[in-house]
Order: sequence, then structure tokens, then C-alpha cells
Amino acid sequence: MRIDQRAENQLRPIKITRNYTRYAEGSVLVEFGHTKVLCTASIENSVPRFLKGQGQGWVTAEYGMLPRSTHTRSDREAARGKQSGRTQEIQRLIGRSLRAMVDLKKLGENTITIDCDVIQADGGTRTASITGAAVALIDAMNVLLEKKKIKNDPLKGLVAAVSVGIHNGQALLDLNYDEDSTCETDLNVVMTQSGEFIEIQGTAEEKPFTREQANQMLALAEEGIKQLVEEQQKALGW
Amino acid sequence: MRIDQRAENQLRPIKITRNYTRYAEGSVLVEFGHTKVLCTASIENSVPRFLKGQGQGWVTAEYGMLPRSTHTRSDREAARGKQSGRTQEIQRLIGRSLRAMVDLKKLGENTITIDCDVIQADGGTRTASITGAAVALIDAMNVLLEKKKIKNDPLKGLVAAVSVGIHNGQALLDLNYDEDSTCETDLNVVMTQSGEFIEIQGTAEEKPFTREQANQMLALAEEGIKQLVEEQQKALGW
Amino acid sequence: MRIDQRAENQLRPIKITRNYTRYAEGSVLVEFGHTKVLCTASIENSVPRFLKGQGQGWVTAEYGMLPRSTHTRSDREAARGKQSGRTQEIQRLIGRSLRAMVDLKKLGENTITIDCDVIQADGGTRTASITGAAVALIDAMNVLLEKKKIKNDPLKGLVAAVSVGIHNGQALLDLNYDEDSTCETDLNVVMTQSGEFIEIQGTAEEKPFTREQANQMLALAEEGIKQLVEEQQKALGW
Amino acid sequence: MRIDQRAENQLRPIKITRNYTRYAEGSVLVEFGHTKVLCTASIENSVPRFLKGQGQGWVTAEYGMLPRSTHTRSDREAARGKQSGRTQEIQRLIGRSLRAMVDLKKLGENTITIDCDVIQADGGTRTASITGAAVALIDAMNVLLEKKKIKNDPLKGLVAAVSVGIHNGQALLDLNYDEDSTCETDLNVVMTQSGEFIEIQGTAEEKPFTREQANQMLALAEEGIKQLVEEQQKALGW
Amino acid sequence: MRIDQRAENQLRPIKITRNYTRYAEGSVLVEFGHTKVLCTASIENSVPRFLKGQGQGWVTAEYGMLPRSTHTRSDREAARGKQSGRTQEIQRLIGRSLRAMVDLKKLGENTITIDCDVIQADGGTRTASITGAAVALIDAMNVLLEKKKIKNDPLKGLVAAVSVGIHNGQALLDLNYDEDSTCETDLNVVMTQSGEFIEIQGTAEEKPFTREQANQMLALAEEGIKQLVEEQQKALGW
Amino acid sequence: MRIDQRAENQLRPIKITRNYTRYAEGSVLVEFGHTKVLCTASIENSVPRFLKGQGQGWVTAEYGMLPRSTHTRSDREAARGKQSGRTQEIQRLIGRSLRAMVDLKKLGENTITIDCDVIQADGGTRTASITGAAVALIDAMNVLLEKKKIKNDPLKGLVAAVSVGIHNGQALLDLNYDEDSTCETDLNVVMTQSGEFIEIQGTAEEKPFTREQANQMLALAEEGIKQLVEEQQKALGW
Repeated sequence: MRIDQRAENQLRPIKITRNYTRYAEGSVLVEFGHTKVLCTASIENSVPRFLKGQGQGWVTAEYGMLPRSTHTRSDREAARGKQSGRTQEIQRLIGRSLRAMVDLKKLGENTITIDCDVIQADGGTRTASITGAAVALIDAMNVLLEKKKIKNDPLKGLVAAVSVGIHNGQALLDLNYDEDSTCETDLNVVMTQSGEFIEIQGTAEEKPFTREQANQMLALAEEGIKQLVEEQQKALGW
Repeated sequence: MRIDQRAENQLRPIKITRNYTRYAEGSVLVEFGHTKVLCTASIENSVPRFLKGQGQGWVTAEYGMLPRSTHTRSDREAARGKQSGRTQEIQRLIGRSLRAMVDLKKLGENTITIDCDVIQADGGTRTASITGAAVALIDAMNVLLEKKKIKNDPLKGLVAAVSVGIHNGQALLDLNYDEDSTCETDLNVVMTQSGEFIEIQGTAEEKPFTREQANQMLALAEEGIKQLVEEQQKALGW
Repeated sequence: MRIDQRAENQLRPIKITRNYTRYAEGSVLVEFGHTKVLCTASIENSVPRFLKGQGQGWVTAEYGMLPRSTHTRSDREAARGKQSGRTQEIQRLIGRSLRAMVDLKKLGENTITIDCDVIQADGGTRTASITGAAVALIDAMNVLLEKKKIKNDPLKGLVAAVSVGIHNGQALLDLNYDEDSTCETDLNVVMTQSGEFIEIQGTAEEKPFTREQANQMLALAEEGIKQLVEEQQKALGW
Repeated sequence: MRIDQRAENQLRPIKITRNYTRYAEGSVLVEFGHTKVLCTASIENSVPRFLKGQGQGWVTAEYGMLPRSTHTRSDREAARGKQSGRTQEIQRLIGRSLRAMVDLKKLGENTITIDCDVIQADGGTRTASITGAAVALIDAMNVLLEKKKIKNDPLKGLVAAVSVGIHNGQALLDLNYDEDSTCETDLNVVMTQSGEFIEIQGTAEEKPFTREQANQMLALAEEGIKQLVEEQQKALGW
Repeated sequence: MRIDQRAENQLRPIKITRNYTRYAEGSVLVEFGHTKVLCTASIENSVPRFLKGQGQGWVTAEYGMLPRSTHTRSDREAARGKQSGRTQEIQRLIGRSLRAMVDLKKLGENTITIDCDVIQADGGTRTASITGAAVALIDAMNVLLEKKKIKNDPLKGLVAAVSVGIHNGQALLDLNYDEDSTCETDLNVVMTQSGEFIEIQGTAEEKPFTREQANQMLALAEEGIKQLVEEQQKALGW
Repeated sequence: MRIDQRAENQLRPIKITRNYTRYAEGSVLVEFGHTKVLCTASIENSVPRFLKGQGQGWVTAEYGMLPRSTHTRSDREAARGKQSGRTQEIQRLIGRSLRAMVDLKKLGENTITIDCDVIQADGGTRTASITGAAVALIDAMNVLLEKKKIKNDPLKGLVAAVSVGIHNGQALLDLNYDEDSTCETDLNVVMTQSGEFIEIQGTAEEKPFTREQANQMLALAEEGIKQLVEEQQKALGW
């Protein structure tokens, strides 16, 4: 039995709330248990310099934690004057994952920026971010379609993410903070709705893991992501 | 009649929600109409260097806007690598206002940091921040009392804040974004619950204002703050 | 009697010296007692990006203190790599005050930057800066008129500023450093030559102030600014 | 056949040169084909603040590319004033991988910093860095042992790394720059000498990959790392 | 004849004004013609970390130009967030030159920081800075002696500096801005009062110079510095 | 006899290796004894903004030390977020020296950036950098000629550099680290192949030097540079 009474292959309660704030073209509050992330999608009618004149769009992401989203307060990155390596690592991961959902040619010369801001952190903020951001991104692309700014839907399919880990030799799905900080291995997995991999990021700071454990974790992740995609679809009314 | 049907001396709907997030010693979501600010209070058992060994505490504030809290997305300050002048001006104002509520001697060698993060911005974010932060600060001081970290309540009294402005020659209470961006004068007022002034900040970028208009605005502010203090008291269950 | 033998409503000796340095289009050394600020106005034939193509100009200000202008040396902001919140707050105030003097349409697509550098600081550096900068700005606008770069004088009228405070319950005009650091309330007031308000910034970190005290301070400020405007006019030879 | 005539499961020519520079406690030039990275290990007799007084050591890594190590010059990070997200991501990966080799308790209160500076970049700089850094780290730990600064060898075992990818649907070992920039999926794998995983980082920006492809890549990586460990052992004279 | 009617070996009018501002332990306005630099010396009763516990003091310098000290406005370094390479080069030169005047052992564990702020720049700001700073430094050391903070005078002798250049093949002493920006070679020379060299910095961006020209320039510099030392002595009342 | 058995006027073993890395248009490893610097030249078909449209090119240099090129590790400048004053001083010197070799008009609107990265530092890194960079610059200009990007060779002649110093009253050529850190005076000299001066930078932090000592040092430098030019010519196959 896990600390919060879940089975090993059980997700925390998942909640995806669309239109959480008023101004963004997409605005989703995603909750994985106590982890809460606000994902907003903003459209800008231009592209970064390295894409100018190529007739395609861009999707990028930024990530931040409110200073007291965590158990103890961490410094405000804006005040310190730089984003941590962890923050940059995470926002690069989110951006790559979301671009895998989109046919950038069909997006036209538009940029969609996804801001993932962690309101409350109890483990799995990056996987919750990707799962919520995918929905916000779709809402923003639909705004472009409705306003006739683009002709064809750039969506290639949904993407969702979940963490898995080895804890006392046992593979667990969707780690909360307590599990995450004591587990031997932590693997973040991003998959498409059709069950293919976008990203695998596994780290064994405590203890190396075997091929068999990797397989167990990937299997758990696959199972979890299937459910997350269903939650996304439900939220989208599909 | 105002754009949102309010009378000139009418506040927007005010909502103060305590314990909005789980980990902070004080956590308040404050809403002035569509403006929503999350105010968390974090206790640290130490003081800044300039106060070391003086047997007193410190209260300070930081302020930030989520990039898409506004009508159009603004750059993330953490990514740009610095806080804007506006941000610094506001967080200094919040800090000064909150220190006026507290007997720093009675706080002992503790620092309380208030983070005001704007989730949605429709004008008046700094006055909403002060009003909500005052409640979060009290919750945090009560944690110190309950845990016997301090003996005497450092609270000197409540503080609340509101904006007033001159719009087409008419004084208005609690400006929303549309009013704020078109008004001739904008005055932010911070007062104690006993009706004395902590801060007055008035700016006439469009058109200078007369002594009489100043008086009208201060009177409106006084009226508004009286109601805000009642809302704070209601939220605190006093 | 005040520390420096002044009456409560008495300014320190005021001195405004034009053409203090050779290269700037306007260059004024302003002295409020021992406080000395060099205000230079520089013309650039362009506008910031957010004003491009709107057929109007811009006036902005920057502020700095020489590291040893003060009683004890403070760090050089250029060496630390950023301007303090206080510096930014002050330069934003100066800029807003000066823009109130100018019809930006008549200024054409020109930017005038006012640099206020404090040579010696004995309290009131921001109010001295505004008072001196107003004169430097007029000199620079006259250069534009003389060189036929603009047709009509953009000047709407003079602006000056002074600090007032409550010290031992008594309202005082034009605080020096000793008074400023011990007073209960500090109010900076910016007014036009016709007696209307541009900015009011009052702070009560020590002790809240009443409406009556606010009125006393505003009355003192009005009196002081009238004299400062006379000094400006004398310096300008009007 | 690959662009450089290698078989799919063939590493590029590997060369590990110890004592490449004179002053560092460990100094290794590692070459994976045209990719050349200088890895130096520096000992400092102290630990970072978060480890003070815990009787254990620390291993950390920094990574940089010489501006013209690449086909076109990239900006010098020291001149731009910050390390890119990619750089931080890589140096965090190297640090975690190396810590997996070391019993930090046995290291005593010493910090070993590994600098991985890329002299020439033809793909796989992060995996070459880890492979070379592991050897430099061992040399530095041996210096501590020889100088009697520590009593027991902190080494838990060797660690090496290699990249694998899917290129035209085919799994390839040890990608060079041309392969890397055109492949559909890129997976970096770090393993211990006993064949367990430390890190797996797979990214499919072009095209998602299947579970079967993941398995093929992991199998290739395992094979490659076995050879890399042999090269490390040969270099160490084991 | 030179642009300003001087002979080749003639300094501009030199003026050294002590006690120019009130608060610094040494405060000197130095003028070389239109070039005006305010040099203040500040005493701090501590030393930088690298000198802790060695029973000696330190002398260091910082340099800055007011944004409009020059013919056209340059960016404020504090606003840009960093000091230029030129600024750093100059302040390092000033610091080294001043340390050559002082027996750091006799200075005790005190740091004297010299701030050289250019009020008006017409060429030769670094040499004027050194010449004026030397006097401010002596004033500060005398404060230490008078206040019995140190026992023995740390002064080893005066130091002064001047620029020389080759202009149309002709060696010139003490270049003003117009000469400096058109000359083939620019040499800055710092010497002791006894005629020995502290620093020589010669640059030929336009055209290399011969050994003979170097000799001519050094001879001119020697002549100029002799006069500058006399001006320093006169100012000091020696 | 010197610490490394050299005669006073003897250079350390000099080695200039062209084409040290594969991608740069010029790539030279220069060795002055144990000092090793990699100098790469990169061509970009554009010029800095201040030269736009003037039909001429630009040559600039950047300098860096690998963190453990030195006896003890120094902080990575990219991680600290800024280049030190020393680094900026050196790279400005290298850039000016190299521009003296080139007719910028003949270079067309091209920029050549020379990166000098110190692999191992045993004194004289700036003079080795200039000496090696001159060769890399020529290789790059020859690429432009061969590719018909420019018509006429912009080369005006070779430039080389060496350090000289006074050690125990004795002038020494080409100081190594031990000599450099204990010598009374350190002079860096840059000369053309025809024996004229480009730069002289002499510093006497320990003890002032006389005119005669300056002459001795310049004579030694001249001798050394003659040999360095021969080494450059040999490396170039001239």
C-alpha cells in the first residue's frame, strides 16, 4: 500500500479544468492530486527569428513555480535574476513534447507560447504540465481556426505524460512528492495518444536500475498515460 | 454609470478565500472583481543581515504577475533576468504597508515573506495584494503564536488598500483595467482599520488634479477601505 | 526650531545653475541646501519602439547617486549589475513628472532623456532632481526650437517638487537627511506652476497619519513649490 | 552503410588520453571520432553549503563548448552572460552520472569538480564527456588516496555513456553530427560497468518511437557501453 | 599649433580642488582643461576576503562616466547591467597606480576605495583620474592618521599620470578629445614623483610607432608629470 | 640562471600548429613552453552595426581560460555570468593588435572573430594568444581569397607579442608563471614584423621601473619578437 493508499498502478485523482482564467486563448488548470498547474496558451502572430519566412509556426513553453508552491519557500527566480537549470530543463521538455502534437506547417507563421505555472507542487509538476498544456494548446489552435487565421487543424494528436519510479524495488505510477524524494529511480514518460513515445527521461541517482525494471516502469507509464488521455478527451468534450 | 454598471463609490465584488493552498503558513486568494491575486505568507526563523542581533523581526513582500494574467502576454521576468521597475515599486509598497501592521519587536527574530502572485489582472492588483496579504500575514503570525514561537501577538491592526481615480472629471472608487488605462489620475491609498493613512500614491500622467479632487478621492478611498476591512474581518471570522 | 535653524515652512537655500556642463542640450546643477544634483537633458532624434510612427515624442529620466554622495559609501550600481528598487522608483517618478510639463505631440519624434546624478545627498534628492530637471528640459526644448527641429513650443508649464514630513507631530517643509531619517511620515509632492498636483507620494513607515496631517503637509508643500517655481523662473530669466 | 562507413552497431574510433594537461588532479582527452572533449577533475577540500557538516563529499560537473568547436561559431556563453538551457541540462546529466560512481561518504568533505570542455564537436559530446570524465574522476580520487587525504576508495564502479538513434527507421549506435541532426529519435544512455542503467534520455522531436524501437536502441546502447568500459579500463591500465 | 593653441609640450590648464564634497574622507575635483573628474576616497575598516588576517590594507578604485559627460550621451552602465570592458580596464589601471603610492602594511586592515566619476569628458579622463585620486587618497590616509587609526604614514610618494600621442607624426602632450580621436598612437603614462614608471600603456590602432617615437613620447610624459606633481603638491599645501 | 634554465634573453620552446581543429577557417595551437592556447578564426559575412554600409570589415577577438588551465581551478566565467575585468582587458588588447595587421577596407564587409582559449596556462597567455591568432587570422583571410570572397589580400604584415619583466633587477624575456608572479615589473609588447610597436603595456605593481629598465625590456622584447615572427613564418611555410 502506498503512503496515500493508492495501488501501484493507480494515478492520483486527475482534474482538468478548461477556461480557468479569462484572457488567454487557452487556459487550463490541471490537478494530479495536490499538484496544481495553471497552463495558459498565448497566440502571437509572428515567429522567432530563426523561422522567419519559412511559412511555418512555432510552439514553445515556459515553466515556473510560485515561490511557496512547495513545502518550504524557494527563491523567486525573477528576483534572483535567472532561471535554474532545473527550470530550463523542464521547460525545454514541455516545449519539445508539445511540438510533437502539432504540424507546424499548418500552424502558419504563428507562435503559441504555453506558460506552465505551478500553483501547488506535490511531485509530478512536469508531467502534469505537459498533460494540461496539451489541452490549452488545442484550445488555442481552435481559436485560430474559428477566427479563420489558419485553414487546417494543425493537431496531430494528443500527448500526455506521467512519472513512474522504483520505490523499495517496486515500480510505482505517478509519484507524489514524498515518493519522489525517496525513490531510487525516477522516470518521466511522454507518449502520444496512439501509444508511441515522445520522451523518456530516467534518472537513478540512488541506485542503478535494470532492463527489467525499465520495462516494468515503461509498462506502468503506458497504462497511466492511456487514462490521462481519456481525461483530456473528457475535458475537451470529445 | 460605469462600464460595469457600478456606482461611483461602489467596490467590485470582493472575495477573500483563506487556506487557498496547502503548504504556506498563510495562503489567501483575494479577488477584486476579475482581479485575482494569490497571497502566501512564509515564515523563516532568521532575519536579514541588517537586522541581525537586534531582537526584532522583519516583514517583506515580493510581487509577480503570471505572464498571461493580462490581456496580452508579457515577458516572464525570470526569463528576462530582471524584475521591472514597476514590479519593484509595487513590492516595496506592499512590504511597507504590511510592516505598518506589525510590532516587529514582538515578532522576534523571524522573517515573514509575503508573495503576491497575480493570477488574473483587471486593474488594482497592488491594492488587492495588500488587502489579501494582510490576511495571510495574520494567519502566519497566528501560526507562530500557536506553535509558541512567539509570546505576544505582533498585530497592531488591519490594513487595506484601494485605488481611486478621476475619470471624465468624476471621482471613481476601485478602478478596473479599462477605467485605469483611460483615467486622468490614479491614486492608490493604504489605510489602517482605524482610518489613518499608511500610503498615498497619486499620479496624474494625463492631467493634473486639484486639491478639491484630491479631497474627493481620499474621501472615496476612506469609504472603500472601511468596507474592505469588513471583508477582511469576515474572512478572519472576527 | 529645526536642526538647521529653519522655520517649519522654510526651504533650504535653493540654487539653480544652468549650463553647468558643456555638452548636454540642457545642464543644470540644482542645490537644496547640501543636496546637489546634476541634471542633464540629452536630445535624440528618435523615439522608443512603442511610440514608433505615432508622430509624437517622449521624455524619460534616469537617476543615480555617486557612490560617495552619501554619508557612508554605497555600492556602485553599475558594478553590482543592477539598479536598486529605490533607484527605479525614483527615476519613474521623475519621468512621469516631467512628461506632465510637455505636449508630446509638439515634441515631434524626438526623445529627451534627463539624467539626474546626485553629487551630494542630504535628503530630498528626488524633489531636487525634478525641480532642476524641469529647467534642463526647457533648455533642451529651446535648443530644438532654435535649431528649427520643431515648430511649436511643447512646454505646458513648469513643474517643481518638494518633500514634507511629520516630525514629532509637527509638519515640516523640505526635509534634510537627519529629519528625513527620523520623521514619522514622508510625503513627496510634485505640482505645476498653476498649483495643481502631478504626484503625491506619502509613506508612513513609523506611524500612520491623519487626514488633518495630510492637509497640513499638502498646504506646506504648496507654499514651498510656489517658491521653487519662482527660483526656476529666476534661473530661466523669465 | 552509414555516412562514415560504419556498421549500425559500430562505435566511432575511441581514444582516451590521460594526463592531457599538467595541473589538474585528473585530466583526460576523450575522442569519439572527431568529437574531442577535455575532461579535468579538480579537488577542493570543502563541500557546498547544503552538505556542510554531514561528513560526506560531492561530485559536480560543468560543461562548455569552445565557440568554434562546432561547424559554425556559436556565441561565447561567458560573453552573453549566461549558460544556455542546453548547457545546464548537459552538465546536470554529467554530474548525476558521475555521482553514481562514487560513495560520497568515503569521499570525505571533499568536492571534485569535473570540467568538460568541448574542443571539437561532431555529435555525442555529452556521452563522450561522461565517458572521459569517469576516468578523470578516478585519477582524482586516486590522488586523494595517495596523499592519504581519504582512507578508502570511494569508487563504486565505472560508468560510460553512448547515444543511439533511429535513422530512416533503423537503430544506429553512437551518432555523429550529421546523423544526429537528421535522425528521428535520439537516445542518450548512461550505464554502469555491470550493465545497469543510470540515465536514459530519449527525445523524438521528429517522429514518435515505438516500444520495440526503444528496446532495439537500449540493446545497441548496452553493446556500445560494454566496449566503452573496456576502453576506459585499458586507459586506466586495469 | 594645436587645435586649442597649446604648444606640443604644454599641458591644458590644471586645477585640483580639495574638499569638493562634504562626506568623503577625501574629495577632489580634478580638471585637465574641460575634463572634470570627481575623485572621492572612502575608508572602510575591513579588507577584501583574499587579504583577511594578513595585517595589511587595500586600495582599490572604481570609475564611471556620467551618461552625458560626453559629446553624445552614452548608456548608463547601471541600467545596462554591466560595466564595459573599457571601464574595467580603466579602473584596474587606477587601482594599480594608487597602490604603488602606498605601503599596504602601514595601512592596517583598512580598505580605501577611490571613486572616479567623470563629470565632463574631453580626453584624458583616466590620467586626470589618477592625478586627482592620488590627492584624495592622501587626504583619506591623513584622516586615518589624525583619528589615530594607524600609526605611521603609509604614503610612499606621489603618483601622477598624463597621456601623450603621435598626431601627424608629431608627439603631443596631454591630448584632448579631438586630438585623441584622430591621433595615430595614444600612450598613457603613470609615474612617481621621483620620475620612475608605474604604468605605460601605448596603443597604435592607426599606425605602428617606432622606438624613437616611443622615446619622444616618454620624454614628453616625464616633463608633463613633473608639472602635475607640482600641481598636486600645491593643492596639498606642501 | 632562470628557474627553467633559460638565458635571460631566451624564449621558451615555441610551437605553432596549424589546422589543429577541423571546422574553423583558421585554427592554430600555439605553445610558449607549457602555455597552450587554441586560436580559431571564424568568418562571418556581415559587420557589426557601427560599421554597416561603410564597405569595410572588422576583426575582433574573444579570450577565455578553461577553468582548470591554471594551477588552481578558477570559476567558469559562463557560470558566474560575466567576464572578468582581466578577460576583457586581454581580449581588447588581442583585437586591437590583430586589427593592426589588416587593411579593413580590403576585407570587405566580413567579420573575422578570433577565439583564444587557453588550454594550459603557464604565464604569457595574452602574448601567446596574439602570436598564434595572427597565424589563424592569415589562414582565414586566405580562405576568403581562395573562395573569391575578396579580391586583394588584406594582410599588412605579421604581428607577434612577448612579455618581458624585471626580476631581481634583471630584465628577462618571456616570463613563465613563476617568474611572472614574483617579478617587479611586467611589460607586454606587441610589434609588427618590421619592428614597430603596436602595443606596450607595462605595469609595476611591486616596484617602479626606470627609463633605463624600460629600454632594456623593450630591447629584449624586440629580440624575442623577431624570433617569434620567424616561427610564424616557418609555420606558414613562407
